[in-house]
Amino acid sequence: MSAPKKVVLAYSGGLDTSIILKWLQTEYGCEVVTFTADLGQGEELEPARKKAELLGIKPENIYIEDVREEFVRDFVFPMFRANAVYEGLYLLGTSIARPLISKRLVEIAEETGADAVAHGATGKGNDQVRFELSAYALNPAIKVIAPWREWNLHSRTALLAFAEQNQIPIAKDKRGEAPFSVDANLLHTSSEGKVLENPGDMAPDYVFQRTDDPVLQAPNEPEYIEVTFEKGDAVAINGEAMSPATILTKLNELGKTHGIGRLDFVENRFVGMKSRGVYETPGGTILLEAHRGIEQITIDSGAGHLKDSIMPRYAELIYNGFWFSPEREMLQALIDKSQEFVTGTVKLMLYKGSARTVARWSDYSLYSEKHVTFEEDAGAYDQKDAAGFIQLNALRLKLLAARNMRVKK
Amino acid sequence: MSAPKKVVLAYSGGLDTSIILKWLQTEYGCEVVTFTADLGQGEELEPARKKAELLGIKPENIYIEDVREEFVRDFVFPMFRANAVYEGLYLLGTSIARPLISKRLVEIAEETGADAVAHGATGKGNDQVRFELSAYALNPAIKVIAPWREWNLHSRTALLAFAEQNQIPIAKDKRGEAPFSVDANLLHTSSEGKVLENPGDMAPDYVFQRTDDPVLQAPNEPEYIEVTFEKGDAVAINGEAMSPATILTKLNELGKTHGIGRLDFVENRFVGMKSRGVYETPGGTILLEAHRGIEQITIDSGAGHLKDSIMPRYAELIYNGFWFSPEREMLQALIDKSQEFVTGTVKLMLYKGSARTVARWSDYSLYSEKHVTFEEDAGAYDQKDAAGFIQLNALRLKLLAARNMRVKK
Amino acid sequence: MSAPKKVVLAYSGGLDTSIILKWLQTEYGCEVVTFTADLGQGEELEPARKKAELLGIKPENIYIEDVREEFVRDFVFPMFRANAVYEGLYLLGTSIARPLISKRLVEIAEETGADAVAHGATGKGNDQVRFELSAYALNPAIKVIAPWREWNLHSRTALLAFAEQNQIPIAKDKRGEAPFSVDANLLHTSSEGKVLENPGDMAPDYVFQRTDDPVLQAPNEPEYIEVTFEKGDAVAINGEAMSPATILTKLNELGKTHGIGRLDFVENRFVGMKSRGVYETPGGTILLEAHRGIEQITIDSGAGHLKDSIMPRYAELIYNGFWFSPEREMLQALIDKSQEFVTGTVKLMLYKGSARTVARWSDYSLYSEKHVTFEEDAGAYDQKDAAGFIQLNALRLKLLAARNMRVKK
Amino acid sequence: MSAPKKVVLAYSGGLDTSIILKWLQTEYGCEVVTFTADLGQGEELEPARKKAELLGIKPENIYIEDVREEFVRDFVFPMFRANAVYEGLYLLGTSIARPLISKRLVEIAEETGADAVAHGATGKGNDQVRFELSAYALNPAIKVIAPWREWNLHSRTALLAFAEQNQIPIAKDKRGEAPFSVDANLLHTSSEGKVLENPGDMAPDYVFQRTDDPVLQAPNEPEYIEVTFEKGDAVAINGEAMSPATILTKLNELGKTHGIGRLDFVENRFVGMKSRGVYETPGGTILLEAHRGIEQITIDSGAGHLKDSIMPRYAELIYNGFWFSPEREMLQALIDKSQEFVTGTVKLMLYKGSARTVARWSDYSLYSEKHVTFEEDAGAYDQKDAAGFIQLNALRLKLLAARNMRVKK
Repeated sequence: MSAPKKVVLAYSGGLDTSIILKWLQTEYGCEVVTFTADLGQGEELEPARKKAELLGIKPENIYIEDVREEFVRDFVFPMFRANAVYEGLYLLGTSIARPLISKRLVEIAEETGADAVAHGATGKGNDQVRFELSAYALNPAIKVIAPWREWNLHSRTALLAFAEQNQIPIAKDKRGEAPFSVDANLLHTSSEGKVLENPGDMAPDYVFQRTDDPVLQAPNEPEYIEVTFEKGDAVAINGEAMSPATILTKLNELGKTHGIGRLDFVENRFVGMKSRGVYETPGGTILLEAHRGIEQITIDSGAGHLKDSIMPRYAELIYNGFWFSPEREMLQALIDKSQEFVTGTVKLMLYKGSARTVARWSDYSLYSEKHVTFEEDAGAYDQKDAAGFIQLNALRLKLLAARNMRVKK
Repeated sequence: MSAPKKVVLAYSGGLDTSIILKWLQTEYGCEVVTFTADLGQGEELEPARKKAELLGIKPENIYIEDVREEFVRDFVFPMFRANAVYEGLYLLGTSIARPLISKRLVEIAEETGADAVAHGATGKGNDQVRFELSAYALNPAIKVIAPWREWNLHSRTALLAFAEQNQIPIAKDKRGEAPFSVDANLLHTSSEGKVLENPGDMAPDYVFQRTDDPVLQAPNEPEYIEVTFEKGDAVAINGEAMSPATILTKLNELGKTHGIGRLDFVENRFVGMKSRGVYETPGGTILLEAHRGIEQITIDSGAGHLKDSIMPRYAELIYNGFWFSPEREMLQALIDKSQEFVTGTVKLMLYKGSARTVARWSDYSLYSEKHVTFEEDAGAYDQKDAAGFIQLNALRLKLLAARNMRVKK
Repeated sequence: MSAPKKVVLAYSGGLDTSIILKWLQTEYGCEVVTFTADLGQGEELEPARKKAELLGIKPENIYIEDVREEFVRDFVFPMFRANAVYEGLYLLGTSIARPLISKRLVEIAEETGADAVAHGATGKGNDQVRFELSAYALNPAIKVIAPWREWNLHSRTALLAFAEQNQIPIAKDKRGEAPFSVDANLLHTSSEGKVLENPGDMAPDYVFQRTDDPVLQAPNEPEYIEVTFEKGDAVAINGEAMSPATILTKLNELGKTHGIGRLDFVENRFVGMKSRGVYETPGGTILLEAHRGIEQITIDSGAGHLKDSIMPRYAELIYNGFWFSPEREMLQALIDKSQEFVTGTVKLMLYKGSARTVARWSDYSLYSEKHVTFEEDAGAYDQKDAAGFIQLNALRLKLLAARNMRVKK
Repeated sequence: MSAPKKVVLAYSGGLDTSIILKWLQTEYGCEVVTFTADLGQGEELEPARKKAELLGIKPENIYIEDVREEFVRDFVFPMFRANAVYEGLYLLGTSIARPLISKRLVEIAEETGADAVAHGATGKGNDQVRFELSAYALNPAIKVIAPWREWNLHSRTALLAFAEQNQIPIAKDKRGEAPFSVDANLLHTSSEGKVLENPGDMAPDYVFQRTDDPVLQAPNEPEYIEVTFEKGDAVAINGEAMSPATILTKLNELGKTHGIGRLDFVENRFVGMKSRGVYETPGGTILLEAHRGIEQITIDSGAGHLKDSIMPRYAELIYNGFWFSPEREMLQALIDKSQEFVTGTVKLMLYKGSARTVARWSDYSLYSEKHVTFEEDAGAYDQKDAAGFIQLNALRLKLLAARNMRVKK
């Protein structure tokens, strides 16, 4: 790979990406464009502009954008249509944000004539894969620079020394080491590393930042809410219509209050090792429960079972960084096709760490009380049909049993 | 089908199966053998013996058996090795009990020279299918009699009249109609029908019988327990070894106390209609969470993702009544193969309706702190390997992107 | 089911459906509308009009239609996009025709105010299921009459007697029994029953009607043809653009000449029994080979492997009669999404019973000689990347091996 | 990776692996152990011993073994139980041989105290992955050396110069470049590269080495053979019992004569690029057809459809080099479970390039002429059962159709 001339850097404004910024300038002598996105991580973005300027970035090379609506509308919601969970439990909060960042990095590279993009993910994790597969899928000629895999700043001490040598301001609380590593966006906050590295030790209370403690802080009374869906996407809470990002923000507030969405999890990274993470996905956990609730009455078993059967593969693709791949898009076409009538309202009980569907209704309901009733059904269903249904489903089993008896004699 | 001469009836001792007993004697003039099983439903069995005798069943034709250990060991535990849930949420508590009952019915038929078996499931539900497919798979020549599909006792009034005409004792509380229908065994209690028939109405509090109310009754303090597994099956709680049925019983007590395992659910029956049920699976819900927890550190991604991908099909087979089918047995072979090292201990927090894994450890752990650490890893993992890994995973995406750019010009 | 008042009958003009026509008039006293479709079965349709008139059908109640283009365009081609084969070998020639017939029956019922449709399939086969599921999926209120399941004309003698009593003309060759049963359309001819009922006996030569004998009749020289595809559908042969039905007709001629597409097969019917059939699918066999050939260079492994993995389910749905189901439509959306660039040309060798791809090219090709070459590749591919790729793919296997060694000591 | 001290090399005795042998000695100064396996590639092995001695390998370090029986019994046959084909067509002839070679390399390393193994696969292909994943899965501490990824002998000229400098004998026909690259074993011969690199050009006739030309050489008369299976594995041809390797050898002779098993194919390599290969799998092609034939009557639809649905994944695992992985072993457990009664005999017609099943019989047959017959079936099957079967399968489709009509008004 020839040296990059102009690089678009995913820049948070924090110490690590500031060091990367400087390192890119120093190592490659290249022009740097910074991209700082508001994905709902809950941090001010304007300080990032000041730091970038301080590090010599030209004003026209500083991109700061609020992408929350795009994030929820085009990434989070499509994923939730699939009820996607990785390895049975993880709601993919980090995985789903990376493709959007890469997409903007590549677009800004094209706008600014940059020939490379750079990110701050390490060589051990999944995020490098997600960033880079997305970038290459959108622009096969782009260069991707991953400083953590290239440089020799292998210790905290070395990083701080580099920062000092290069006049990068170091916040006081960054001098010591953080007790664990955090990633956050509108969908979730993840924590991993350091104090969490032994999966046999319980996570300390201070790890949880996004949700109130279900035992100590959550209210003693349950709260009931109604979430309304149209074509598989949430569109209103308690009857009030909201934009995608506003809905997720509101669900996050509700989930936080009731301590919902905590997950202590050991997962399999794509790069081959196991990792332990603590995830907090307050609004997403409510949303998943609600989406399942509305699907229960609006899609039929054929559609639902097909969705269930492909979900693990869909989730794995997102986890592994293949959002921009033909197979993810094919699965999305399948999933979206199923959501045409996933419209209606779900009532949920939120209480001390959990969200449970307690009722659901829809103009598009497939539930037929007339058929299922224990009462007289006025001929809606002929119980005698079941005899034939069972006989033909049993036929192959009978033939098998007869064969097995015959040959085992 | 020619008329049966001797029938083994799945007999609970209750009013409905007593009516069936009498109806079989009357309708077919056949000898009846009763089979009453203790599956952990929490009812005395000896009254069933008295009622059977009262209805003229010969003592040698009365079978009363405690099958709880067999139920948990040979049915519940193998199913939990798969983390099986139907339609994302249902733990299959009723589905998994039916094959065992059918198996004993067929075996008793062979022992007693009976040519038929009979059950009390209606023509609208799944249980008829489960009973009958199991029976035919075990004995293709057996006759199965399903009185609810045959007789003309279509109203409560008609049933009670038949009972009175035939001197079948009617408990006072059975005169009126039950507000909903219940099925119970060691794994769960299900409630459906009547007051639950509108899925838009919340279930009344009195529907819940098996779990304490998480809001009103569950303790204000969480309880921490440890569940130990060997080869995928739970073998001890808090270090105390127990038999399969004892473990599930103990987990049920714990789950009951903390209000764990309530599910309000609309599902797709195999016979084609949607049905709303309220399920309480206290111990099973804890067990599923714990099993997932121990698998997280003891099986690798290849095994785990394969299990996840076939699970929906496995669950559907059990739900639909195909426990005794070659495909369920094939999937079981696959699942069991994965459990050789699923041995270790999980720590869970039980609190007001939920069970969450908070720690797990195992001598068979695949988790490698050496590899995953944020600290210096002494060469366990070479971050540069990730570059090649990503390049080759990206190659096809790059070729696709280049093609697409080329042809879209 | 109340008695039908007006019935649309799938009417071939042959003896059996003529008997059904009369039986419907006699049994139900209802008005009959006939629908006779040209699906490419190779029979004149006008005689059907005469027979219908003779049996008292009003001219405005006689529908005779050439649906070959619709058949290939909307049913055969979408199915071939999936490379669908049932149980590894069967190209679904009968299965794919039934939904189209049902669709027209239901549409004609709506046009003519009929309340029922009727078909001539027996109670043992798959076709009854395919006809009826399609009809119900398109009009849930329609009545479906299946005379073979209802009447008591259980022997050839009884049928002929009924025909004679009702002045239905009996062709001389129909007096005796046919040695096997045949179904044909533009995609295939199937033969089953009678002389074919023992799967241990070779099919007699006279069973094959649609293809020349590869040994005795096919030319001694191979023939090379080129089939061109656009977005997954064949559009030209040897450079000559043709309509869908014309292409299949032409491929049938080529396949017939070279004895291509014979299959002797024992399959599992949806109704639970095994059945032996002899299928001749001359053009379809060439088309499947060609479609696979063009996909080899135009879709990538992610798309291709996903298609392969869902294909068996897709084929089973079509075989079982679920063409008009949400899950088939969801899978179709997935498949169609993959075909956007399946455009190009395949060269095939046709010779004595087989069709083999020998070359293929496309403006949309993903094949990169630059990458794959054994020659110097000018840096297109860095072989060192493979080391990292393998190391990370191996990591979990190494951790497993280390664990297994540790615990087995 | 520290330098290896003793290396076990997969050694063919040819020029390339002789150069590798010398390079290992020169580059690492390490002791070399050679392993030469007879996998049925059709070459004498003793010359390899002489060449190894000539290159200074100690006699006790020269391993020459006939592993043909192990290859067929433990690798080929288990794979054929699954009817495995990669991307619809490829019978995995190269893929299945690599794990066995790696297994012996690792075992010999353990026997001889070697700390490394080496292979002659390039950095562009699949074989490097297969060799190395297998080695690491069997011994996580082993070093694997892949000289083609390490050295700087990037042209034919450089290789020959190295050979001459090191006194490695060069056969006359190796001076020029081979027109394509070949791999062979008892299951197949593959050819790729050079003259085959343009997939739009037909393969020249001289590429085919393993099969007679179907047009010019194959007999004008078909040949009929019978293959007998026990538990899924072939055990006899025309009634004569044979060992696994003998059976495959005999089928290869038959296939060669009739020009069976030629495949011109563009496939997706695991490393991300497309590649065009010409495969000749004469015996394997017959075996696959025969295995499908015997399964048709001995396994039921539940087992068969499950096998079909997991086959693509199983084949992909083998292709990608994951033979020694938990998921391949889990799938094997599932597959093997299905083969208990796959016992019986298939009759095939071999003729000018194709093998077709024409009859099959088994004491374990599930085919029931009594049920399927077009004749009177004496009550084996009640056609009226089909009505109920269809009604309940249709119920959800009716409910869907009614909903859709309702909401679209």
